[in-house]
Amino acid sequence: MANDRWISETLFDDLGFRMTYKADRVLYEMQTEHQHLVLFEQSHFGKVLMLDGATQVTTSDEFVYHEMMAHVPILAHGKAKDILIVGGGDCGIAEEVLKHKSVKRLVQVEIDQSVVDFSREHFPEFTGPVLSDKRFELVIADGMKYVADTDRRFDVVIVDSTDPQGPGAVLFSEEFYAGVKRCLKPGGVMVTQNGVPFFQPDELTGSIEKFRKLWKDGFCYVAAIPTYIGGHMTMGWASDDRKLRQVAVKTVAQRYARAGRFQTRYWTPEVHVAAFALPRFIADSVAAVK
Amino acid sequence: MANDRWISETLFDDLGFRMTYKADRVLYEMQTEHQHLVLFEQSHFGKVLMLDGATQVTTSDEFVYHEMMAHVPILAHGKAKDILIVGGGDCGIAEEVLKHKSVKRLVQVEIDQSVVDFSREHFPEFTGPVLSDKRFELVIADGMKYVADTDRRFDVVIVDSTDPQGPGAVLFSEEFYAGVKRCLKPGGVMVTQNGVPFFQPDELTGSIEKFRKLWKDGFCYVAAIPTYIGGHMTMGWASDDRKLRQVAVKTVAQRYARAGRFQTRYWTPEVHVAAFALPRFIADSVAAVK
Repeated sequence: MANDRWISETLFDDLGFRMTYKADRVLYEMQTEHQHLVLFEQSHFGKVLMLDGATQVTTSDEFVYHEMMAHVPILAHGKAKDILIVGGGDCGIAEEVLKHKSVKRLVQVEIDQSVVDFSREHFPEFTGPVLSDKRFELVIADGMKYVADTDRRFDVVIVDSTDPQGPGAVLFSEEFYAGVKRCLKPGGVMVTQNGVPFFQPDELTGSIEKFRKLWKDGFCYVAAIPTYIGGHMTMGWASDDRKLRQVAVKTVAQRYARAGRFQTRYWTPEVHVAAFALPRFIADSVAAVK
Repeated sequence: MANDRWISETLFDDLGFRMTYKADRVLYEMQTEHQHLVLFEQSHFGKVLMLDGATQVTTSDEFVYHEMMAHVPILAHGKAKDILIVGGGDCGIAEEVLKHKSVKRLVQVEIDQSVVDFSREHFPEFTGPVLSDKRFELVIADGMKYVADTDRRFDVVIVDSTDPQGPGAVLFSEEFYAGVKRCLKPGGVMVTQNGVPFFQPDELTGSIEKFRKLWKDGFCYVAAIPTYIGGHMTMGWASDDRKLRQVAVKTVAQRYARAGRFQTRYWTPEVHVAAFALPRFIADSVAAVK
C-alpha cells in the first residue's frame, strides 16, 4: 500500500543499528516540546507504542516484561501484601500485580496523568481490570518525592521506568533508590527496569553499584523480550534478604497456587528460578561491581 | 560518512519488520545464482555475515549460539567422545566442541568447501584452532547422504543449519532426522537450530513432531541471542534418554571441570539447566505437539 509508513526505533542509532516497523495504521501521534509519541498498528506486533524512538509496549509481547516485573518479586517475597509501582502509567504491570490474591493494596505513582488517560483509551486491556479494582490507588505525583515523603510502607516496589535518558534518569539515581529503601518494609524487595546489557552494560552495573550501597544484596535477573532487542533485558534486584532470589521451584509453585494460579504466557515457577541464572558475561559484570 | 551503507536483514519482511545495520566497511560481497552473501564491519557488532538477508554470524555475539549448541549436549551427555556437526562450515561450533578434553573425534560434514574457505579467510578465530586440531575431520559432502550412509556412530550430533528456506530445508526433514538417529550411539543426543518461536513457531513444533516419531524424547532449550531478533531462539533436542535434559547443576559443573573448565562467555552450569525452563508460550506449544 502506498500509505504504508515505516517507523524506526532510533534508540541505538549511535551504535549504527535500527529496528524498523511497517505501520499498517498510525493510531495516534503527538510531538510535545518534551517528547515524540507514536502509536501504530502493525501486522505482527499489534499495537506498538514508541516514545522518542524507543519501543515501549507492543500488544504481541507486553506479557513478557509485565509478568516478569510483577510475578518474580511478589512470589520471591512470598507474603507481599502492599505493592508500590513507580511509573507504570500504562497499567500493564499493575494488571499483573492485581492477579495475586495475596495483594491487599497496590499504589501506583505516575508523574503524568496523561499517560494513564492515554492508556485508558488505547490499552483498555490493561487499564480496565486495574482502574476498577478497589485494591488499586493511583497517585499522580513525582515518584522521587513520593518515596522520600510517604508514610506508607511496602513489601515490593516495582520501578517501571523508561531508559535513563531525559526525564526518566532520576529513577536511576542513588537518591531515588534511598527513598525506595526508606519505604520498603523489612524483608522487602525492589525491582527495576535495567536495560539490555549487550547494548547498555553501564546501565546495569551503575544501578547495582548503587543498590549495594543501600542494601545487603544487589543483583539482577533476566528476561528475553522480543521487541527489546539485544538478547536478555535485565531487571535490577535490591533487598536485604539474599534468600529472596534463591527460592526453590517447588516453593515458588506453592506460592503461585496460593496466589490463584492465574494464567501466564511467559512466567512459570521454573522460568522464575531460571531467570536468576545469568549468562556469564552478565554474571561477570555484576560480580565486578563493588 | 557519505560512504556509509545501511544493510538490512530482510528475513522478516513479510512480518513488516526489519533490522538494519550501518556498515562501516563492506569486506566481501558476492551474488551467485543461488544466494547473496555480504560480510561487513560494523562499529558495535564487529564482523557481520549476512546470507540472503538473514544474519548468520557476528563477532560480538557468536559466542552465545556457538557455546549453547556445543556445551549443552556434550555436558548433558557426560561421556561424549565422538561428535558430528552437520553444516557448521564457519567452524564456530567446532571451535567450542574441541575445547572439551573428553572429545576424541569431531567430524564436520559441510556440503560446501567454499564456506570453510571463506571462514578460513574471514573468521580465522574460528578456523585456526579447529583446522589445526588432530581430532577434527572435515568431510565435504551432503549431510543428508552422510547420515544415511556412514558406518560411524556418534554420541552427539549437532545440526548447524540455516533457516528451513532454500537449500537448508532438507535438514528439517524427517528423512534427515532418521539418518541422524541411525548414526547416534545408544544414549546419544541430537541438537538442532530451530529458529525464534516468537516469529517462527511452526519451525519448532514441526521439528519436534518429527523428533517424537523417532525418539522417546523430543524437546527444546532456549538461548537469547542479540542479533537473532525476537526473544529466545530455540535449539531442538532429540534423545531416547529423557534424563539427559534433567541433569542437575552440580553434575553439570563436575563434568565441566573434567572437560577442562575452559572459558565461556554465555554458558555456565546454571545457564545450562536454566535453558530447559521454557517460557510458558513456548512450553505450551511444545506440549501440544503429538
